[in-house]
Amino acid sequence: MPLFDRFTALDVVGPYEVLKFLPEAEIVFVATRPGTVRDAPKSLALTADAAFTEVDSCDVLLVPGGPGARALLDDDELLGWIRRMDEGSTWTTSVCTGSLLLGAAGLLAGLSATTHWGAVEVLESFGAGYTAERVVFQGKIVTAAGVSSGIDMALALAARITDQTTAEAIQLAIEYDPQPPFDAGSPAKASQDAKDLLAKGIR
Amino acid sequence: MPLFDRFTALDVVGPYEVLKFLPEAEIVFVATRPGTVRDAPKSLALTADAAFTEVDSCDVLLVPGGPGARALLDDDELLGWIRRMDEGSTWTTSVCTGSLLLGAAGLLAGLSATTHWGAVEVLESFGAGYTAERVVFQGKIVTAAGVSSGIDMALALAARITDQTTAEAIQLAIEYDPQPPFDAGSPAKASQDAKDLLAKGIR
Repeated sequence: MPLFDRFTALDVVGPYEVLKFLPEAEIVFVATRPGTVRDAPKSLALTADAAFTEVDSCDVLLVPGGPGARALLDDDELLGWIRRMDEGSTWTTSVCTGSLLLGAAGLLAGLSATTHWGAVEVLESFGAGYTAERVVFQGKIVTAAGVSSGIDMALALAARITDQTTAEAIQLAIEYDPQPPFDAGSPAKASQDAKDLLAKGIR
Repeated sequence: MPLFDRFTALDVVGPYEVLKFLPEAEIVFVATRPGTVRDAPKSLALTADAAFTEVDSCDVLLVPGGPGARALLDDDELLGWIRRMDEGSTWTTSVCTGSLLLGAAGLLAGLSATTHWGAVEVLESFGAGYTAERVVFQGKIVTAAGVSSGIDMALALAARITDQTTAEAIQLAIEYDPQPPFDAGSPAKASQDAKDLLAKGIR
């Protein structure tokens, strides 16, 4: 899982909490340099334990999004690393605007894909066809919608890597029985007031 | 949000991604010493930016759980800090086995509360009445069930701190429109096979 300045933490931590249960899973956070990497509000830092130059291959690549993703759409180091990982991966995946990085790396041309609902036009500029689903499998390429969708993607992925019973046991372990107090999690469901507030800026 | 060795990352990062949107929110991760704090598999580290001795009060206390929580049920430093924070807090909250720490600090006696489904007996040993709900409000004390439930709790809390439209805008921002691929997120819903596998150990 690559990290970069102004990533969104839940994009990686949601799937992490699922995938860490997989037999023989070894999850490595990777960045330009080992050390702490800050998210957009700068109040959270995750540690990258390896540099991009130290990781030559992986079974599952998971690229998170976040405000920082859009600043890296022509970053040769990150995009080159994503391409090299994809060459040897069994699964190449993204959460939220991580799909923009997959797109910028040239991995989504001609494929159906998803992303955060606010990033559809950028996604399509890379030749992907946006589909408003929460998780989109296209061969070994798997894209998930905004932020929290990574949990759903990781459970679907866990079932394919192992089996459904294992994925269900993981779901039970993290007690993932979601009961959102409101039904506003997509543009189709949110009220106009909520959309207007978000467009204006909540804080 | 206090961190400790072998915490569960999603317990804090789920609520963090919701609460960070609140106007004037300043979220601080706190630990015995500033620096990185590792989760149970040790493959993830979050940074604590302050020591317990440096944080005298907060509006919202959120105590995460994880395998490490059970090792701290008689830890004077952490429990004392939790008690001090609770004295001045507007909301005192927990996710997963973080409720055991609230209980050990003496804050749940006589109250209804929830926790991870696997920690019910320990919770009740502190005089709390377990209720199998995902989020339990008891005055200013709010407990959430296992791991992923912190997202639901944080949205409910966001609505009380601000208003429902703001909480819905946050839900839309993180595209929290959960669609788990399976329906196994609670002991009442999971298959016996999934329960048996989890009891045996997935990995």
